[in-house]
Amino acid sequence: MFSHKLVPNISVDCVIFGFDFEKLNVLLVDRELKDEKTGEILIKDYTLAGYHIYEDEELDAAAARILKDLTGLDNIFLEQFASFGQLDRVAGEKDQLWLKAIKKGFSERIVTVGYLALIDNTKVELHLKDRDVKWFPVSMVEEMDMAFDHKAIFYKAMEALQKKVKVEPIAFELLPDYFTLSQLQKLYEALLGASFDKRNFRKKVAQMHYVIPLKKKQKGVAHKPAQYYLFSREVYEKTRKGKISFII
Amino acid sequence: MFSHKLVPNISVDCVIFGFDFEKLNVLLVDRELKDEKTGEILIKDYTLAGYHIYEDEELDAAAARILKDLTGLDNIFLEQFASFGQLDRVAGEKDQLWLKAIKKGFSERIVTVGYLALIDNTKVELHLKDRDVKWFPVSMVEEMDMAFDHKAIFYKAMEALQKKVKVEPIAFELLPDYFTLSQLQKLYEALLGASFDKRNFRKKVAQMHYVIPLKKKQKGVAHKPAQYYLFSREVYEKTRKGKISFII
Repeated sequence: MFSHKLVPNISVDCVIFGFDFEKLNVLLVDRELKDEKTGEILIKDYTLAGYHIYEDEELDAAAARILKDLTGLDNIFLEQFASFGQLDRVAGEKDQLWLKAIKKGFSERIVTVGYLALIDNTKVELHLKDRDVKWFPVSMVEEMDMAFDHKAIFYKAMEALQKKVKVEPIAFELLPDYFTLSQLQKLYEALLGASFDKRNFRKKVAQMHYVIPLKKKQKGVAHKPAQYYLFSREVYEKTRKGKISFII
Repeated sequence: MFSHKLVPNISVDCVIFGFDFEKLNVLLVDRELKDEKTGEILIKDYTLAGYHIYEDEELDAAAARILKDLTGLDNIFLEQFASFGQLDRVAGEKDQLWLKAIKKGFSERIVTVGYLALIDNTKVELHLKDRDVKWFPVSMVEEMDMAFDHKAIFYKAMEALQKKVKVEPIAFELLPDYFTLSQLQKLYEALLGASFDKRNFRKKVAQMHYVIPLKKKQKGVAHKPAQYYLFSREVYEKTRKGKISFII
């Protein structure tokens, strides 16, 4: 399909978020380099899901390819949030060692386009077997050893996500088709690092015409089964049309 | 200062907006190519303000350099809004002719990082003498002949700007330090392509604690001099702190 000739100095990196009904997680890839002779581990840390683009591949297509490879999923919420071109972004000692070992000739200036991906966790689990890819709670990232400037890219993605969920209904991308209001509240709490009063939260949700109550209820739960809701983008768009709002 | 060795396949393009108290304008650069022998004009159209990055130059620095060159201004509101890597973005016949004539060897895949720049028109006018650079009303762009994918980049920038002014107080970057409420209303109308009722608009503004009335009034105007206001980012940030809002 592609020429498989990579562009040496342009890559994409995906910051893939998932929600497990308790906390927000990010998908990271193992990076390990062993000394060929001694077997000694020279590098062991984590990277975002990224790679160089092919010469005949669009940026969005490259990001979608990487996501598909890792998760088996198509049609995921995937959006650019920033590009990164810091001069020293691949200049670290470990990173130079890695680039020299793995990608000969790629040790120069690399500009990467950052993508934000939001995944419904319940759909992806099965595809992650036997891959050096794992979900980590976002709260763990600070203490993790990460490649290149990937920690900085992750923080920038978190910031973009937190801004975005306040003004666009993208949080729903992290939920399954049917969800309970407790799940929705937990999601917003995880996204914004806040905790909300249950009654106030439900009052707010009652004003969101596009969060629609269903007759369906939870099954097989120990507690009183909660009602399911769904998000309708169509209702969102129709009810927002013509609304002009300012920041106040 | 820089090595002046350009990166052939990475550029930045600035979509520079200004407001003349009546309408929103965009700064465009003339592109003209003449046949060396006959003097016949081969290309005559417009481009955004952009160029390749230097090998030892950060993306933000490249955008700031281009802005400084064109407008003489530092410390302008300047923010990435998207990157563009479409396969055919420099493939047009005119564009290939241009690249071959002007930038030998730069005819291949070029990814460009788009920057949004907001300028206080009253500060910039003097610096534009003798340059092939001009303000054009944004409403004119549709009918203009533009280089590469610059029209698409412009539209994407408009979209980003319209989204952003609703959630961040960046519109004020387009105004001088002191402005009247009529000027502010005209600005929001120009930005959002809408018209507002004067009384409702003023009610909204009265709720923005960060738009602060001054004792100062307009001078030398034919009509009744209007009161001046200023925008305080400090007040904005202090009054927003801890506010958690959702889209409703």
